[in-house]
Amino acid sequence: MKTQYYTACTLDGFIATEDDSLEWLFPLGDLNETSYPQFITGVGALAMGSATYEWMLRHVVRLHTAQPGQWPYTQPTWVFSGRVLKPVPGADIRFVRGDVRPVHAQMQAAAQGRNIWLVGGGDLVGQFHDAGLLDEIIAQVGSVTLGKGKPLLPRRIAGADALQLVSATRVGPGFAELRYEVPRKAP
Amino acid sequence: MKTQYYTACTLDGFIATEDDSLEWLFPLGDLNETSYPQFITGVGALAMGSATYEWMLRHVVRLHTAQPGQWPYTQPTWVFSGRVLKPVPGADIRFVRGDVRPVHAQMQAAAQGRNIWLVGGGDLVGQFHDAGLLDEIIAQVGSVTLGKGKPLLPRRIAGADALQLVSATRVGPGFAELRYEVPRKAP
Repeated sequence: MKTQYYTACTLDGFIATEDDSLEWLFPLGDLNETSYPQFITGVGALAMGSATYEWMLRHVVRLHTAQPGQWPYTQPTWVFSGRVLKPVPGADIRFVRGDVRPVHAQMQAAAQGRNIWLVGGGDLVGQFHDAGLLDEIIAQVGSVTLGKGKPLLPRRIAGADALQLVSATRVGPGFAELRYEVPRKAP
Repeated sequence: MKTQYYTACTLDGFIATEDDSLEWLFPLGDLNETSYPQFITGVGALAMGSATYEWMLRHVVRLHTAQPGQWPYTQPTWVFSGRVLKPVPGADIRFVRGDVRPVHAQMQAAAQGRNIWLVGGGDLVGQFHDAGLLDEIIAQVGSVTLGKGKPLLPRRIAGADALQLVSATRVGPGFAELRYEVPRKAP
């Protein structure tokens, strides 16, 4: 069981524009040509922040439309938010707030040996890293720069804590997939 | 002849800390194991901004010490700055300011068919890109995050202008070398 931050980002380290757009991302390539299809089969539980969840509501579930779509994950999903958010009918979504450590323990129990996917955003992933609970970063680095936007991981992880690059793979002209192991730091 | 931005950066898109430190960079690996030794043989002229130049003065030439070292480049170097900066005795350094286009023409003439290296910082490289004069980005992506710092390239280069990833290579656990072609945009 590993806790993995799997995400797309830009060459200059952003996961979205300042107003949470991913328009820059979709022209870059086909998700099915990346490691995603294999990755998602290993996932037993997901965690995301409120901005990520609300992006899913707007762009994937389209909860505001006459015929909303389904939540795309069968695995249980924990959504961290200080606000009250709309649920998705029929989806296993658990709203939580505060310390990531007890939630991580719940996720671990639910995942039954499979991996925990930290979907984002960057600050939520940073909180898991602060608690010594982040094992891997798998970044699909898109061939774009944005100049400004939502940060990949607003933390200093350097020196003795530095990441360990495991592999670097070109996925067409639009993506480089970089896989890192995160040395466990004391919680 | 190509105009190349060759630089190290962090996974989150910074080329230096906010106070221009590269302390995070040096533990990551040996420059001689990267493509740098081959790259520098192809360079006929260099351009850099004042922060980069002053970093070189402090850390490489050590102009403030009793026995300063030599300027490391034999190729002519153009330094963009609105301020008056100290020269390095014996080095071919040309101080300029303003529009990058006439300077690029001078550099091209001096390079005699070899490449132009844009050393940094990010905004200076952005000015060359704005003018349609940037051909390649070669980024040694270090296995660290800083959370904040000096940006790699403070521009939006996406959509029809998006970069084209040519290769992604692991250079030990500390670096991924990503090479991009930059589609020529109209100046």
